[in-house]
Amino acid sequence: MTYYVTPVANLIEELSKLPGIGPKSAQRLAFYMLKAPPADVKKLAEAILKVKEKIKFCKICFNVTDEDICQYCRDTPRDRSIICVVEEPRDIVALEKTGEFKGLYHVLHGAISPIEGISPEDIKIGELLKRLKGQEVKEVVIATNPNIEGEATAMYLAKLIKPLGVKVTRIASGLPVGGDLEYADEVTLGKALEGRREM
Amino acid sequence: MTYYVTPVANLIEELSKLPGIGPKSAQRLAFYMLKAPPADVKKLAEAILKVKEKIKFCKICFNVTDEDICQYCRDTPRDRSIICVVEEPRDIVALEKTGEFKGLYHVLHGAISPIEGISPEDIKIGELLKRLKGQEVKEVVIATNPNIEGEATAMYLAKLIKPLGVKVTRIASGLPVGGDLEYADEVTLGKALEGRREM
Repeated sequence: MTYYVTPVANLIEELSKLPGIGPKSAQRLAFYMLKAPPADVKKLAEAILKVKEKIKFCKICFNVTDEDICQYCRDTPRDRSIICVVEEPRDIVALEKTGEFKGLYHVLHGAISPIEGISPEDIKIGELLKRLKGQEVKEVVIATNPNIEGEATAMYLAKLIKPLGVKVTRIASGLPVGGDLEYADEVTLGKALEGRREM
Repeated sequence: MTYYVTPVANLIEELSKLPGIGPKSAQRLAFYMLKAPPADVKKLAEAILKVKEKIKFCKICFNVTDEDICQYCRDTPRDRSIICVVEEPRDIVALEKTGEFKGLYHVLHGAISPIEGISPEDIKIGELLKRLKGQEVKEVVIATNPNIEGEATAMYLAKLIKPLGVKVTRIASGLPVGGDLEYADEVTLGKALEGRREM
């Protein structure tokens, strides 16, 4: 890295640590920042610092929030008898955009993954069980990702939650809307068949 | 963007302005920063601020530097009779990595592009001509990109520099090493033929 002067080399190194940013992208971003108006670049740096300073996790559902309790947990008209369990805060945004769900959320902050060494104690499962005991929750919708880790987490949660007398449901897997049977992989197509509904 | 609390929405907005970062990537980066250790994120923000604070352009060649004169212009063993002209500071890094060039550089900070409204006055052409008049330069190697704008800039420069009695050369276009004739586009293959050398 002797090709760059220290401040540039440092910036490239820090940018390379970001997910999905390789050394080439980091270099391109660094040189973009070098040329960009100082005010714009300062705004970015400040937005980064502010997010770490202001953002905490909701004491109830572990969504990101700038207050103690997040906007969804605070939202009184929401249906408190149904909780949707997701892996990450960003999944809440995806679900909210559908406009289909009016209940509360619970963010696990990960999924069970023996390969990555993530066990049930490492994610917010204990906290979810506590919520179920304290409240009048009738249904838990498990919306973890439809991959190995997400499915394992869903099965693990179902086994724990069912004995509490709470209904456990799983979001449907199947063909994406606008998709094409010809190009669907066989696992998805199998899931689509398995989850078929009467018309 | 009402799905996010303000600091997160701001960060996503600022990240989306970066080149090659779309709204989805910006969201992924923002959530990564939310979860990353505060010290790491602070280091990134500080590296961004530092680069704007410390970095300036070399008074001679317009490369990025943290001093008045860049490391290459200061490097006395370098051959001062040959100047390699590039579009961007990052191109110097690419050339240095080859270990093939031991002369000086000149960074244009762009290329002539009527479509993007970049005329010869907008890039460091005047500054290059001044350098050629003042010094004992014998050759100018034009290493602008082998695309329309880079070629136009190369031709424009050649027309201006040749009358000064300075030799003007252009880096070779051809097949990339390890490439395959079958997959080469016809323009590159044409250039490779045109630039053929006796063995």
